[in-house]
Amino acid sequence: MAAGCRVAARLSRLSSENHVTIVERSPFISFSSCGLPLFASGEVDGISDLSRTSYGAVRDVEFFREVKRVKVLTETEVVEVRTEKNEVVCRPVAGDGAFTLPYDSLVFAAGSEPVRPHFPCARSPLISSFHYPADAENFRKAAQKGKVASAVIIGGGFVGCELIEAMTSLWGIDTFLVEKEAALLPGSLDLEISLFIESGISSDKIHLLLSSTVERLGLKETGTPVVSIEGGRQIEADRVFYSLGIRPNTGLAQKSGIRIGRHGGVLVDNQLRTNVGNIWAAGDCAEVRNLVTDSTDIFPFGSISNRMGRAAADSISGGHVCFGGAVGTFSLKLFDSIICAAGLTEEKAKLNGYDTATVIGCWPDRPDYHPETKLLFGKLVYEKPSLRLLGLQLAGEGEVTRYIDVFSELLSNRKTVEDLAGLEHAYTPAHSSPVSPLNYLGYMACDQEFDGIINISPLHVASYEGIFVDVREPEETSSFPFPEKAINIPLKNLSSKLDEFDPVRGLMFVCERGPRGYEAARLFKENGHRNVSYLGGGNLLYSKIEKCLSARPSLKSAACREK
Amino acid sequence: MAAGCRVAARLSRLSSENHVTIVERSPFISFSSCGLPLFASGEVDGISDLSRTSYGAVRDVEFFREVKRVKVLTETEVVEVRTEKNEVVCRPVAGDGAFTLPYDSLVFAAGSEPVRPHFPCARSPLISSFHYPADAENFRKAAQKGKVASAVIIGGGFVGCELIEAMTSLWGIDTFLVEKEAALLPGSLDLEISLFIESGISSDKIHLLLSSTVERLGLKETGTPVVSIEGGRQIEADRVFYSLGIRPNTGLAQKSGIRIGRHGGVLVDNQLRTNVGNIWAAGDCAEVRNLVTDSTDIFPFGSISNRMGRAAADSISGGHVCFGGAVGTFSLKLFDSIICAAGLTEEKAKLNGYDTATVIGCWPDRPDYHPETKLLFGKLVYEKPSLRLLGLQLAGEGEVTRYIDVFSELLSNRKTVEDLAGLEHAYTPAHSSPVSPLNYLGYMACDQEFDGIINISPLHVASYEGIFVDVREPEETSSFPFPEKAINIPLKNLSSKLDEFDPVRGLMFVCERGPRGYEAARLFKENGHRNVSYLGGGNLLYSKIEKCLSARPSLKSAACREK
Repeated sequence: MAAGCRVAARLSRLSSENHVTIVERSPFISFSSCGLPLFASGEVDGISDLSRTSYGAVRDVEFFREVKRVKVLTETEVVEVRTEKNEVVCRPVAGDGAFTLPYDSLVFAAGSEPVRPHFPCARSPLISSFHYPADAENFRKAAQKGKVASAVIIGGGFVGCELIEAMTSLWGIDTFLVEKEAALLPGSLDLEISLFIESGISSDKIHLLLSSTVERLGLKETGTPVVSIEGGRQIEADRVFYSLGIRPNTGLAQKSGIRIGRHGGVLVDNQLRTNVGNIWAAGDCAEVRNLVTDSTDIFPFGSISNRMGRAAADSISGGHVCFGGAVGTFSLKLFDSIICAAGLTEEKAKLNGYDTATVIGCWPDRPDYHPETKLLFGKLVYEKPSLRLLGLQLAGEGEVTRYIDVFSELLSNRKTVEDLAGLEHAYTPAHSSPVSPLNYLGYMACDQEFDGIINISPLHVASYEGIFVDVREPEETSSFPFPEKAINIPLKNLSSKLDEFDPVRGLMFVCERGPRGYEAARLFKENGHRNVSYLGGGNLLYSKIEKCLSARPSLKSAACREK
Repeated sequence: MAAGCRVAARLSRLSSENHVTIVERSPFISFSSCGLPLFASGEVDGISDLSRTSYGAVRDVEFFREVKRVKVLTETEVVEVRTEKNEVVCRPVAGDGAFTLPYDSLVFAAGSEPVRPHFPCARSPLISSFHYPADAENFRKAAQKGKVASAVIIGGGFVGCELIEAMTSLWGIDTFLVEKEAALLPGSLDLEISLFIESGISSDKIHLLLSSTVERLGLKETGTPVVSIEGGRQIEADRVFYSLGIRPNTGLAQKSGIRIGRHGGVLVDNQLRTNVGNIWAAGDCAEVRNLVTDSTDIFPFGSISNRMGRAAADSISGGHVCFGGAVGTFSLKLFDSIICAAGLTEEKAKLNGYDTATVIGCWPDRPDYHPETKLLFGKLVYEKPSLRLLGLQLAGEGEVTRYIDVFSELLSNRKTVEDLAGLEHAYTPAHSSPVSPLNYLGYMACDQEFDGIINISPLHVASYEGIFVDVREPEETSSFPFPEKAINIPLKNLSSKLDEFDPVRGLMFVCERGPRGYEAARLFKENGHRNVSYLGGGNLLYSKIEKCLSARPSLKSAACREK
């Protein structure tokens, strides 16, 4: 796929002395597996479009032979690596006829494989992962014939989320998503951002069953799959997909005596070399340096696989190359929402032992007066003593993706919240505001650390013990009331009320998006109040999160306790 | 405006001991001047919307007094700064009544003013700059009444380009743009990108008169403005705007003995301090460090003004702040095109004495199979010996802006083309390709420098003396022929033809977008051909540029000579 084909094509390109062979178990090479959900959804016509060049050629075996001068053996498996003899033993997937291939250099680019269900799972063509082209093709055929009225997706990670859109947008399939964690994209996003995204999923075709554990995946006598969920609920569906994550495909590497990292990937150095001299690894199966934590990690993203493939080819060719690692930057589209993140979530930062702080905010993606303005929300994670950036999560509509790439670069260079505050960006009302969301996040973090203006997560509102002051205008508070007991004093009237509050008592200032709350907190702080804070993302984010939390009391109390 | 109001609001916020007064000549404060074209075009309803907060309050004198605790004197001019007495002399714009204001700290945030015509220019309400709110308001009123059937815009910079869209989109005004340089946005873009943008302007309401010098701007007896252009052409129009650039408004600063930089701005250090101890400057009137050239420069962008304003307030308050400078990052929307740039153009890099090299490319903004894919074009400028990045220009539709902010950060940190090649980015087919345009530009520059695979600008095709080999498929060459005499050998057939070419003779490989040309050049290079190159941006960019050039033979021969 990405890494293997990239390393092969580049090696061949770098010198006509390089004779490159790709050995691939499946019938397919060099297609965009990230495009499979778009094929399933009907947005992309044929699966071969996912491996087509801009001028219409399909990147198949013949294309690789003629254009890239690379030999490809598909439906062929490498069953043994004889490192002492510098040869691999291959076997056609269907049938006999093992043969050996000698090598000067060997690259493991075996990718990842879907995590198999840990619960009892019946065998049926109606139950599968969503990882291989066949998974998508079988579904698409059935959907086109109108054979899929209902579906269950087990697992709410990247693939699970992309599938709920693919099932419902065009096909209108009644879709259940079962996730054992309390929110979508667990591990990739913190609860605030995850719940915000959940609040935007409003189709009546989608049924989210969160905090729900699958006990068994069986079949009725008719052959219809039945998903049994802890607590007794059973869901019948025409089609079930499990998307429980992926793991590096390293069985062969392990058997060959190649060192494996703590995340299960083939350990490589910054030249993509394994512990065996003339063996390299690249792509989803490789474990490289995480530039945030400085430990090793896997990054199963097509962008990073491509970079590794290129770097491995240069390394094999003796070029000066350094693949320093990655921070794990990704983006995802889910209906109208765009979700981007890089680095560590708050949860992961704490697990990694960082003294962690966060700020949360809400901004228009363009000036408020622009007719196409949309809102975006963000959560910044940083290390308290050093002020070093640790991670960012953004979600919203409109101009969102532009902020994650630059954050990723700051993260790779171990920059601080002050660097974020000082960032230059391209401003024009059609695409951005004069102060970018990244600047604001930097400002908020600086103000929190240097001046004690505390940004409070909407998750911690319920457990807050001080006084809530809603500084919005009366007409705003009546249309969108802040649901806790809050005193309403519009920001402009606040300076005359400074003496009415006990300077020691905690005060949380609440407004619609956050900035007025911040200004109010600053005003009180500058006038001797010690314990001031404001609600990050304002009532806007809070009300969305509260909507989700109120349906799940257990999660709400957990969020409070965590504080 | 941006800098002045930012510094005032932040100073007041930082301490209630800070008593801040803004003195402003016009009746307006704190509105988005970048939004004036949107008001003129009709996309924004009222001019007061440009100074409205998200919750509907107008940022006027009263708002600043009540919410920001800042005193504002509008329609008041500072006529003298008595630095020895730490006081300013103010005077109402209308009438007498001069008075003095003492200060502990003084900030010059006088912004910029439009460059006045250097040609004879009649006085008429129908002739104006497009810089002040009144300029936009007068036009909008006349347009709404149907009084503007035709307009002339003199100057094709940022404002001129925004105005042709504002005139034509909704109002359908017959619009002439007169620019003395050969292309739009001169100084901000190199010719390749500028001509590409020009090729996309196709409204029959727009008449671009490039390489055209205005001799006189007069009035007919009826009062109708007449623009006389060198060579004898005269254009009558209901409305004439001159947009000849802006310059820092520093008359008062100069009179006050404050040091002015070579670009006419108030010179400040990285604390925004002028040469006079308790006087600061921020915004369009300040001259700061250009992080690319390391000399001083002016950056009249709202984003940078905001950052300066904040930094000046922190500096005055004794905070630890460092405004290191800027690289000049901007974006612009022009009809469906998005234009972004940062750092130096090739022209400016050469003027600054850099040993300059460039690469030009074309990419889809998403994978080709994605239904919303659009194309973008880019030109990278770097320094040859050090491989240091110097500048980037991007233009196209779709996902364009995301690449400029991260480039700006690389530029600020003096990174190289190798850093660009190794950049991490967020990939999902909905928003990007697995290899980003920035990665590709880095690859192309590395291949050019390390391996001699030369990227050729479409401007240099006409003067190229080697052989053109078109490596597209025959059906592509017949639909979109490469207009020079070119041999057609599709890429896949090329390796069998290696011996048919003289290894010393220059070869330029041409394809639709560039990558196949690159692959062909690489193949020949690896097989002993010394002088290989490919056409940057392919036939796609070349044909667009050629369309513009063919209408202007003088420009075409100049472009050739320049090589």
